[in-house]
Amino acid sequence: MKSIQHSVHTLSPKQVHINDHFWSQYQQLVKDVVIPYQYDALHDRVPDAEPSRAIRNFEIAAGRQDGEFHGFVFQDTDVAKWIEAVGYALMLSPDPQLEQMTDDVIALIAEAQGEDGYLNTYFTIKEPDQRWTNLVDCHELYTAGHMIEAGVAYYEATGKRQLLDVVCRLADYIDEQFGPEPGQMRGYDGHQEIELALVKLYRLTKEERYLKLSQFFIDERGQAPNYLEQEWEKRGRYSFYGGKPQERINLEYCQAHQPVREQKVATGHAVRAVYMYTAMADLARLTEDERLHEACRTLWRNIVDRQMYITGGIGSTRHGEAFTFDYDLPNDTIYSETCAAVGMVFFAHRMLQLEPRAEYGDMMERALYNNVIGGMSQDGKHYFYVNPLEVWPAASHHNPDREHVKPVRQKWFGCSCCPPNVARLIASLGQYVYTSDEETIYTHLFIGSESTLSVKGADVTVQQTTNYPWDGNTSFSFQMEQSLSFTLALRLPGWCQKGQLLVNGQIVDYAAMLRDGYVYIQREWSATDTVEWRLQMDVQVLYAHPELRANAGRVAIQRGPLVYCVEQADHGDQLASLAVMTEASLEAYYDSSLLGGCTVIKGQAIREQNVDAEHALYRLQPPKRVEQAFIAVPYFLWGNRGEGEMSVWLRKA
Amino acid sequence: MKSIQHSVHTLSPKQVHINDHFWSQYQQLVKDVVIPYQYDALHDRVPDAEPSRAIRNFEIAAGRQDGEFHGFVFQDTDVAKWIEAVGYALMLSPDPQLEQMTDDVIALIAEAQGEDGYLNTYFTIKEPDQRWTNLVDCHELYTAGHMIEAGVAYYEATGKRQLLDVVCRLADYIDEQFGPEPGQMRGYDGHQEIELALVKLYRLTKEERYLKLSQFFIDERGQAPNYLEQEWEKRGRYSFYGGKPQERINLEYCQAHQPVREQKVATGHAVRAVYMYTAMADLARLTEDERLHEACRTLWRNIVDRQMYITGGIGSTRHGEAFTFDYDLPNDTIYSETCAAVGMVFFAHRMLQLEPRAEYGDMMERALYNNVIGGMSQDGKHYFYVNPLEVWPAASHHNPDREHVKPVRQKWFGCSCCPPNVARLIASLGQYVYTSDEETIYTHLFIGSESTLSVKGADVTVQQTTNYPWDGNTSFSFQMEQSLSFTLALRLPGWCQKGQLLVNGQIVDYAAMLRDGYVYIQREWSATDTVEWRLQMDVQVLYAHPELRANAGRVAIQRGPLVYCVEQADHGDQLASLAVMTEASLEAYYDSSLLGGCTVIKGQAIREQNVDAEHALYRLQPPKRVEQAFIAVPYFLWGNRGEGEMSVWLRKA
Repeated sequence: MKSIQHSVHTLSPKQVHINDHFWSQYQQLVKDVVIPYQYDALHDRVPDAEPSRAIRNFEIAAGRQDGEFHGFVFQDTDVAKWIEAVGYALMLSPDPQLEQMTDDVIALIAEAQGEDGYLNTYFTIKEPDQRWTNLVDCHELYTAGHMIEAGVAYYEATGKRQLLDVVCRLADYIDEQFGPEPGQMRGYDGHQEIELALVKLYRLTKEERYLKLSQFFIDERGQAPNYLEQEWEKRGRYSFYGGKPQERINLEYCQAHQPVREQKVATGHAVRAVYMYTAMADLARLTEDERLHEACRTLWRNIVDRQMYITGGIGSTRHGEAFTFDYDLPNDTIYSETCAAVGMVFFAHRMLQLEPRAEYGDMMERALYNNVIGGMSQDGKHYFYVNPLEVWPAASHHNPDREHVKPVRQKWFGCSCCPPNVARLIASLGQYVYTSDEETIYTHLFIGSESTLSVKGADVTVQQTTNYPWDGNTSFSFQMEQSLSFTLALRLPGWCQKGQLLVNGQIVDYAAMLRDGYVYIQREWSATDTVEWRLQMDVQVLYAHPELRANAGRVAIQRGPLVYCVEQADHGDQLASLAVMTEASLEAYYDSSLLGGCTVIKGQAIREQNVDAEHALYRLQPPKRVEQAFIAVPYFLWGNRGEGEMSVWLRKA
Repeated sequence: MKSIQHSVHTLSPKQVHINDHFWSQYQQLVKDVVIPYQYDALHDRVPDAEPSRAIRNFEIAAGRQDGEFHGFVFQDTDVAKWIEAVGYALMLSPDPQLEQMTDDVIALIAEAQGEDGYLNTYFTIKEPDQRWTNLVDCHELYTAGHMIEAGVAYYEATGKRQLLDVVCRLADYIDEQFGPEPGQMRGYDGHQEIELALVKLYRLTKEERYLKLSQFFIDERGQAPNYLEQEWEKRGRYSFYGGKPQERINLEYCQAHQPVREQKVATGHAVRAVYMYTAMADLARLTEDERLHEACRTLWRNIVDRQMYITGGIGSTRHGEAFTFDYDLPNDTIYSETCAAVGMVFFAHRMLQLEPRAEYGDMMERALYNNVIGGMSQDGKHYFYVNPLEVWPAASHHNPDREHVKPVRQKWFGCSCCPPNVARLIASLGQYVYTSDEETIYTHLFIGSESTLSVKGADVTVQQTTNYPWDGNTSFSFQMEQSLSFTLALRLPGWCQKGQLLVNGQIVDYAAMLRDGYVYIQREWSATDTVEWRLQMDVQVLYAHPELRANAGRVAIQRGPLVYCVEQADHGDQLASLAVMTEASLEAYYDSSLLGGCTVIKGQAIREQNVDAEHALYRLQPPKRVEQAFIAVPYFLWGNRGEGEMSVWLRKA
């Protein structure tokens, strides 16, 4: 077992200024559209939308007005995630007006905090005596976690301490209540989140107690006797959501069925799972806990080798928004929640900090370029929660087993978890591009940007220029005080069959420099040096593992990091009757007029057609087979041309 | 539009004595195993089974003991269906002990009947003031309907009037309560059943009021203002099953969203639907209602051309055990309840009485030989409610979307609707073999039997000898007082590409005698005549309509009336990796050692195998393709060799 690298520098989004067309557009959308829109929503000012009441809850809790609590028990997190996204947006560019609006919200939050540090409008308003009595259902620590992430991000963006002070007091209070000492609760939240948030708070404040508290929550989880089960027995087996006493408590759902180091298989609610794995990887690195690292590796392998959609999505059923079991990845009754793919990006990012292995970068990229951005429309106002790999709109409308699969994106405020999650990821995307340690700058994502990284005690500004994901050529240049000897590590993506490396225009044979999927270029770099990393971006036909029954006899098309799909808009309906012909027929071209400009893949297919309008449902006569051209478009752009069928996996003729 | 044939003789099961090996075995099972077992269950005497309390409910309602009502609101129907099955069983062969036991149960039921004729233990014991206040949920008329069917069957079997008198009084009481006159309710049941039962009671008693009452229920259904909706508004939109007031009442679920003659598409709960269509066809014939007949034809076409599984099953979702929409026939998340297939047999049988068209006989046979008998194990003690076309046991256990699909048959008393439904159909199967009118004996099913039919005012005994469904050769001979001129009509099944007709050993060219799928042989028949009807039973490969997306690129194998499937027991798991090669490779043979003896189909398949234990879930390398033999077994025999994968639709290589 390798020893854990704990000297990795965790980047702040501030250090990376994204300036390529592809991602700048998304970041601008978040800043110009999503954040103002969400502000109005939180203040119940969006016409025709169900009021959020999230701000109003804080006003009531702060005593500024009278009234009843409204919304989910975790309604506060909508405000927290908005502030976090604002923090990242302010790192992109200053905006005094936005900052003032946010300061006002933060002042309100501070007023709603209890004398003891407690902060949660649901319990403050509605059940002040019931704090910490139903950890499995009530998201109290989860809500605290999101507030902590907001406090950290906003401080990093602005240097303003008010919210940071609030969340430190909150964390201090939680640290008093929870722990192994007599009089403390040995509990943990039903929805993991605070664990990764406390790591961020520790990273910023260097306060060891926060790290230890995170560790406590992770270590306690699933230990016998089971805290959540005892708590549930104590309240008569009732759920917070009412109904009769429950026959059993589903501990797998919240990954509390076993101590985390013994968990081998990803199970239960997918978002809870990956948020927890993210914190586990953080802690494995910071506490040099090899067993925890090993558990992360095992869970990673289980997801990536057996429970992940080709788009980087996770969650095979809507029941519990959950993992099911190995190789069970139905394309049609899928869940694959946007938030879970965001969580996969977090988990991959933390695994990269433990070990620079290209497969972590590959998966981060896979989730990001397909499931995550596919979750948002190009206007920034419509979202998918469920990201299917096969859509038949009539089934979404008329078959209850598929009604959770929406054939078009919904207004983002319909439910509140995914839209701000995408927003905060996109606004903070810079931090995922690189990591560095004392000797090496690791390049994980190919995104046009200017970044300031620290290596060998010096600041190096790295310029990355690329047209990714449309082509695979990226060039790098550097600015620094004086020439410096360090290593530039470039990810060789798993999808790339042939790369070409040029340093200062000279082709370099990188075979001997390749380790775990990264090419390590060690030299004395100066401001005149250029590196070109040319990744040949072929159209690829992918097959699924034969155990993945849903895709037997089918193929998916991929080019670079992008998974492709076919849509009814280009072919009419009955996409199931299309079967892709040989790979040789596939060809990529850029179509500037389609979907805002994208690389399209065209090919030849066999289409099965009904014979002579035969009406019999079952018949001896095979369908007529005609050859026809087809085009596939990037998955992340599907559903932008009205309601229609869509399919990622196509039959192979 | 053809004029309705209303002179068709509806057969009694008594008229047909089944004596072939295939069906006698099933009938014996019902008599020897199912009926005694169910008797014990109804009396709460089955160890380890949840008590039924159905008999006990009658004892409480009759005042024989004190206690609370137990079970579903329609618990009485378990007793009723048992008595109906007993009636048919007694027609097969006398059994004084069984008859005595049944007489005792009937005496109890009579005691539980109210002075006014009302009979329903739930309302009598629990909510005497709430009769007829929640027709949509409470199954009161449904329950009455099953009791009526029982009274008719038991009288026909034994000539004993006690239960018949009970149900006549019950029907008379209902006839007072419901109707178009002032002071009567214009309502109808949420679960259709009484409509077809009243037709049976009319047929037996010749009491026109019963026919008119059935007609009233059918005519009122779905009329505006909607009775069920008004009733629901009146009780504050509450469901019988509790919870909050409902936002909307789902009238499609019980086919009360439109007047029945305007319904064009099969919708809602599949059993309710086909029970209603059965009564509609009965009434269309008996009242010569061409509009009703046309509605039946339209609904039939919709089911058979767009909403029926190849096994004759109906119901594409477990949510509401319901139809979804055209061409939506998923193999894995399927419902296809056994009771619904039983109802398809009823509906087809009534359509045959309206018009002798082979497609009705074909579908009756398809549902019977596949979905219906597939619903029962060979020991008569285990049942499927859901009859899937594709099973992956791990998914049934670990994916909630598929947990309703059981990979092995369950003990029959787990839920009470399907097992007695199969029992009563099998015990009364004789009545489906023929119909006759003044001139013609129509042969719909090929079942070895001796039957006494009335034609031209004379009794004719028809002997049918066959090894069906294993081969397609059936011979007929006749016994009668004296030679008689009449027509023998033989169904030419839709599956048969080539038939041969021999009359007294001479081949007869039947082309000119064929009309709507029946071959009409008109002659003067005598006791020395023989007819041989040789239906060539080829192995057939069937394709689905291209709109049926779930079966794109796939084929099903059929031979005669039997649909085939592949099972893990013969191939190991991962059946999805099998693809059938050319049809030419398929060959049928009889295997006397397999599953009690059956015709098996063997063929060549391509099997896709993992390459070098490659673990990647998605990869560039196609799977290895190896040729291997496979065998398919009759669908109705699946799941008798332990838990394993099963598939009806196979990929075509």
